[in-house]
This record gives sequence, C-alpha cells and structure tokens, in this order.
Amino acid sequence: MYKKIDDNDIKYFSSLFDKDHLFTKENISPDYSRDELSQVQHMPEIVLVVSNANEVSEVLKYANEKKIPVTVRGSGTGLVGACVPLEGGILLDMSKMNRILNLDEDNLTLTVEPGVLLMDIYSYVEPKGYFYAPDPGEKTATIGGNISTNAGGMRAVKYGVTRDWVMALEVVLADGTITNFGRSVVKDSTGYSLKNLIIGSEGTLCVITKAILKLIPKPEETISLLVPFVSKELALKAVPSIIKENLDSTCIEFFEKNTIAFAEEYLGRKFPNTKSEAYILLTFDAKTKELLKHNYEKAADICINKLSAIDALIVDTDERKDAVWKARGAFLEAIKASTTEMDECDVVVPRAKVADYINFTLSLEKKYNIRIPSFGHAGDGNLHIYVCRDNLSKDEFKKKLGDIFNEMYDKANEVGGLISGEHGIGLAKMPYMHKLLGDRQIELMRGIKKVFDPNNILNPNKII
Amino acid sequence: MYKKIDDNDIKYFSSLFDKDHLFTKENISPDYSRDELSQVQHMPEIVLVVSNANEVSEVLKYANEKKIPVTVRGSGTGLVGACVPLEGGILLDMSKMNRILNLDEDNLTLTVEPGVLLMDIYSYVEPKGYFYAPDPGEKTATIGGNISTNAGGMRAVKYGVTRDWVMALEVVLADGTITNFGRSVVKDSTGYSLKNLIIGSEGTLCVITKAILKLIPKPEETISLLVPFVSKELALKAVPSIIKENLDSTCIEFFEKNTIAFAEEYLGRKFPNTKSEAYILLTFDAKTKELLKHNYEKAADICINKLSAIDALIVDTDERKDAVWKARGAFLEAIKASTTEMDECDVVVPRAKVADYINFTLSLEKKYNIRIPSFGHAGDGNLHIYVCRDNLSKDEFKKKLGDIFNEMYDKANEVGGLISGEHGIGLAKMPYMHKLLGDRQIELMRGIKKVFDPNNILNPNKII
Repeated sequence: MYKKIDDNDIKYFSSLFDKDHLFTKENISPDYSRDELSQVQHMPEIVLVVSNANEVSEVLKYANEKKIPVTVRGSGTGLVGACVPLEGGILLDMSKMNRILNLDEDNLTLTVEPGVLLMDIYSYVEPKGYFYAPDPGEKTATIGGNISTNAGGMRAVKYGVTRDWVMALEVVLADGTITNFGRSVVKDSTGYSLKNLIIGSEGTLCVITKAILKLIPKPEETISLLVPFVSKELALKAVPSIIKENLDSTCIEFFEKNTIAFAEEYLGRKFPNTKSEAYILLTFDAKTKELLKHNYEKAADICINKLSAIDALIVDTDERKDAVWKARGAFLEAIKASTTEMDECDVVVPRAKVADYINFTLSLEKKYNIRIPSFGHAGDGNLHIYVCRDNLSKDEFKKKLGDIFNEMYDKANEVGGLISGEHGIGLAKMPYMHKLLGDRQIELMRGIKKVFDPNNILNPNKII
Repeated sequence: MYKKIDDNDIKYFSSLFDKDHLFTKENISPDYSRDELSQVQHMPEIVLVVSNANEVSEVLKYANEKKIPVTVRGSGTGLVGACVPLEGGILLDMSKMNRILNLDEDNLTLTVEPGVLLMDIYSYVEPKGYFYAPDPGEKTATIGGNISTNAGGMRAVKYGVTRDWVMALEVVLADGTITNFGRSVVKDSTGYSLKNLIIGSEGTLCVITKAILKLIPKPEETISLLVPFVSKELALKAVPSIIKENLDSTCIEFFEKNTIAFAEEYLGRKFPNTKSEAYILLTFDAKTKELLKHNYEKAADICINKLSAIDALIVDTDERKDAVWKARGAFLEAIKASTTEMDECDVVVPRAKVADYINFTLSLEKKYNIRIPSFGHAGDGNLHIYVCRDNLSKDEFKKKLGDIFNEMYDKANEVGGLISGEHGIGLAKMPYMHKLLGDRQIELMRGIKKVFDPNNILNPNKII
C-alpha cells in the first residue's frame, strides 16, 4: 500500500518548491489526470513542476523513503495512459525542464533537458544545418516522452526510431542517485546496455533528466511523391518493391480514400487528389536535387509501370506541400473528430504482411459492424488502426472493443508482429503484451523493475 | 561454490550427446581454455558441442539444478577472455550450430544459428544482392560472438554496429526456457527491450540459439581513397571535416607509418605508399558510380586543399585494393607478430577527441619507455591501442601495463569516452569498467544478472 500525501509531505515539498511549482487538491488542473486518448483518468495528490535533476533527486529520495508513487509527465500527448497517475501520489511535471543545453558541432550531438518539445529541437538545429531525424507525428510531445516510448514516426524507414538517436542519458534512480547511461560515442560494448533498457520504459525505471542526441548534417533537398492507386492491394505491393530497389526513401506512408475525406472535413480544405481508392506518399531526401532525381523517378516508374498506379504527383510547390502534409498530419485528429470516442491499435508487422493485416481489419469491420479506419507507416510495417464508437452505447463499445483488440493482437502475433510500434504499452495495452510475450518474459521484466525500483514507486501498474 | 563435474554428470550428458560431441579430461583440446589474446587460461571440465536449442535447454536445465557453471564459446576469437571457462564446468561449443536457416526477401531478413561465421553470412547474401553491413575485423568470428560483444567494425561510421542489425533473438534462459526477444519489425515499443539487454552481455544472461538479422540491398559500387598526410594532426583533423560535409563515407580509418611497416613485414609485401607520417583510408559505397563520385571527389578536395594532404590515391585497381585491404586487415596480427606479448585497449572517445587521445598515448610511450602502436576507426572514435612487452620481463611488463591501462582508461573517461567500443569487457577489462561506471551502476547490472541467472551459472565472474 502506498502512503497518501498528508500535510507533513506538503510542508516538506513546500520547502523545496515555491507556489508556482507546487499544486495540491483543487489547484490541480484536471489535465494532469489524463493523456490524449486513454479512457482511464486519475488525479494526482500533488503536482511538482521540477526545474533540475537535483530537485528530481530530492523528490525521489523522499518518495522512496515514504513509499509515495511518482508519475512522470511531459506534454501528456501519449495515447496509452502511461502518464496517468493511477495511484495518485506525486505527478512530476517535466515540461519546465525545457532548455537546450549544448550543441557540439564537432561531435554532432545536442544535449537537451527532457521537457524540450520535438518541434523546438527541429527549429533549433535545422537553421544551423543539422538534422534530428526521428519525426513522431505529435510535434508538441517532449523529447523525454519520445525517449520513454521509443517513439518512431514517418522517417523510420530511412533513419530508424528514437532509440537510434539517443547517445546518452542522465537519469535519477528511484533512490535519488543521479547517474549517466551511455556516452557521446558511436560504439559501446561496455557492460549491459542500461541506456537501451531505459529507452521505452515509460517512466517505470527512473526519471530522465538530460539526453544527448545524435545529429547529422541536414539533407538539403527533400521531395515527396503522392501516388494514387486503384486498389489497396496494388498500393501496398509497391512498398516492398520500392524498398528492394534500394531507393533510399525517407518514408513510405499508406492511406485510403476515407482517411483523406476525414482530413478534408476536419481541416476544411481540399487534398490534391481524392478520387482514388488508396495512396502511398513517398519522401526522398538528399544533399542535392540530382541525387534525389534518380530515386524518385525510379519509384514513380515502378508504381506506374509495374503496379498500374494512376499517377505519381510530385509534391513540390509550397501550396501542394502544405495541402498534403497538413492533411497527413491531421489524420489522427480528423478520425477522432469523426466519432464520439475511439481507441487505437499501434501494431507493427513485418513489412510484407501489411496488406494482409489491413485486409484483416476490413474483415473485422464487417464482422463487428463497426468503423475501423486506419493509416500507416507502410514502409516500416507500423499501422495505426482506430476503432470508432460512433452511435454505439459505451457498454456495447467496450465489449466490441475488447473482442476486436483481442483478434487484432492475436493476428499481429500470428504474422510475427508486436503490439506497439511507437506509442508504448502504458496501461491500455498491458494485458495484450502479457499474452504476446508470455509469463516468463513478464517475470524477467518485473525482476528488472524490482532491481531499479524496489519499492515500486515509479509509475506503478504500468507496462508490467 | 560450484559443483564439480563427476561421473554421474558425464553419464547424464552421454545420454544426450554422442562421443563426437562430448569431450572430457585429456580429450579436451587446450584451445578451449583460452581466446585469441587474453593472458588468462582455464580448462573446462567438459565440452559439449551442441546442435540445437533443445540440447542447450537440456544442458542448462541440468546445470542450473546442479549449479554447474556454463561458458558459451563461438570461434574463440575474442580478445578479453569472455569465453574462458574460469570456473571450469561446462564449455558449450556453439560452432556446429552454423546453419543459415532462412532468407526472407520480402522483409529483407536473414535467420541464422549463432555459430555461423561472419564471412559465411557475407558470402551467402552478397551474391544474391543483399548486404549485412557490420564488418568487425575478425571475419572468422561467429555471429553469436558478434552479438554477445555488440561488435563494431569499420563500416560503423555509416551503418552502425551489430546492435543495429539484430532484429530478434531466440535464447535459452538459465532455467532452460526457450524464448524470443524482439521480432522481425523495424519499430518496437513493446515493454522493456530485453533484446538490447542481451546484445553485448557476453554470455552472462542467456544463450543465444538463433538470430534474425536485418539486411539491405547491396550497394553496388564501392571505392576507397588512401590519403597520406605530413602529420597525424592534419590527418585526424580531416575526420570531423569530412563528417560535417555529409559525404556519407562508409568508413574512415586512421593509421601511422609504423603500423604499415609492421603489416609490410608481416605480409611480406609492399603497401602503395609508405613515406608519409599518417594516413586516412576512406571508403564510400552507393548504388552507382556517379553517386559515389561527388562524395569522394569532395573528400579528396577537403583533404588536399584544406588540410595539405600529400595526395589522395583512389584505390580502384584490383592490385591496389588487395594491397591496401590486406594490409589493413593484418594490422592486429602484424603488431602481435612484432612483439613477444601484448595487451590491447579498445577505447572509444568522442570523434573530435581522437587526435588528443592519440597524442596522449604517444606521451605514455615516452613516459613508460615502452612501445604502444595503435590504429583506429577514426570515423567513430574507436581506437585499438597495443601495449607491447618486447624485451621486458613478464613482471616488469605486468607492472607497466597496469599503470598504463589505468592512465589510458582515466583519460578515456575524462574526454567522455568508454573503455570498450567493440571487444567487450569479459575478464580483462572488469576493474576498469567498475571504476568508470561506479558502484551504483555495477549494482544495477548485478541485479539484472541475478534476475536472469539466479544461480550464477552463466559465464560467472565476467563483466560484473
């Protein structure tokens, strides 16, 4: 059992935090009780807005001694409830630890605090000629949140995921120890990779207080191709073909007609092409236009001549870029706006199984008589699938959702996939992960959790 | 205390293994007592040559119950004693689990057993148009050994290290459970990354019995540039300049005049250029010659016009390729042949600190009046530095070696580096790792070890 926050605790924390950085009871905003999507909500007992690693250390030391649960929160843009303070206790708001600390132009690294927003990293490094490649859809997420979920994004096809761009972490352990995992070096065979264990651990093992990110020189030229197809099958067939041709595409996105319709309605603006059944959107980047040209021309050729694509529109004018990328960026919000309530499935399957998997979700739409729109990072097999409540009652929806999620995750397992590509496990996906990985692996994860956090104060009841 | 192997144990194992796969006492080859470099040797009590995961599972189950230590061995090409069976017990020889199981051309993955040699992977996939990018120097190492040390190699500048190419592992846990970590997918946010914990754990957490590796289409064209400089300083200055220019070089190697002399003597053949103080060797790969040309011409231009390089020799004829790469491949053996005994330091430092670090080793040569040749993967900051005994007595050497290693690892820490870039910790580097990471991190690693291997049977007394 956890200790509840009492007046003595508040008195103690008031000695560390001024009143702009400490909130209790009716002064706590209800935003702190939820994330962007998860249906589960719970209020913390106290919110502490931390400013540096020493404060985090003091808070954890105290909480660990008194057995008070601590939940870490960045921007709260998660989708699986990982930042919901299920057991009440302390909510550590990291959003004010948002300084960019150092750009090392010789080693091409950027040192940041965890509350820095993804979009602030881009706008800091890109004008200086550098590039941080991961691009999860939600640009107002914090880098700390990105690291905690091993966030992916569209450019993963070429550049990998957040894990591949984190060189080192400063963290605070449950007992308040401040330590560093990893270094600003490319190679590391120095003991167990604790850094990699922390990435994706959703605030259950320690609190990240600093990160050293890898940068590369910014690719100067980027071009996108929007390719409409007469059918999903043909669109999805294009994906392995393009990858096998070694065309070095940055991202390969897939979406259907209806997803575009939602985005058009949501944004109140037109998409350049809406008549086709299915689309892939390809991006290429490189140092020069000439280097790009070979690749995108070859991709267009494969799509049109081998897979009967209707066209291959070069997204080059500012107007067209704006229309296409605004729409692509709005898919999640647009689907959300099209229904009363929804939940999502973030499966990742082997690239060659994407078409099968999407067909499977269509069969579920029919079987359960429910709307299941989807779009996806086809180039890396990561699909975002939304089960929409629409006019169903809350109870009916809950029942159907459980059955559909079970079928979808079983299918993911069957084709060699995993249940989360980039959004994490948090609370919402826990039972499915247990089923997928089995008792023995969960036992190992619980053992690791106990090594890092013997009193189970850090984000309890999440993941495992 | 561990149980010693007795007649009952031998009887039990004889029921599982035929006599070609089980060796005891005087039938055990002394090769099983050592690796390629480490000064520590110890004979196992029994050698079991395993053929599949079920056999591994049976052996571990038995060993775990009886508390018999188990050391896993691939080709034994390690340099830090990780495969030396320090406590005797069982030596699991994985070298006969050497089948390539599946090439998935749609998902671009290769499934292999752990005893497959690195060179056999290349010769299997490359004629089919695919590419496994990591290239640790020792091509007769097994892939299981590569994964267990997170081996690096020269192409890490462009392609990363072994960790980046392992999608999934089948492993046998200490209690005999066979399980899978990871899947054939690009993105993974499904719980703690146990796969990444196993990579680099040098046989202390579980036994790898299968690996799914990532492949990419093979870059069709490759070209190297050998660039001689009048000084080390200028040669090493070229490295960050080339990286900042975004020329996408595959590898950037650095070596000095004397290293070439050793290789010439060892191989009995001439290197194309031997008059300069220091060299960098650059490689570029791409789909077409035209794509390559821009990058290597620009690199040559920077070296010659900005850093006064003496020349930039294109390594394009078969004869020249052979001469350069044979020499580069022979550095370790050549230095070994030049002395009576040596030990090595495999530090990795931030790229911009390489020049400083090499100057520091030169100062140690003078201070200790001992020969310390080195060469290195300058593009990723990973240096291989050899302390040579030459005419010193064993005792004098041991004393000097301890002092020199202490100074070298302290310096690595001071400049933000790590003590092993790619060879691992094993036995030889344990005290230095403890000093670098501190008690608290070693405590976490020991905790993790205990979760995976509560009876401490797997490769005991290594790493931590």
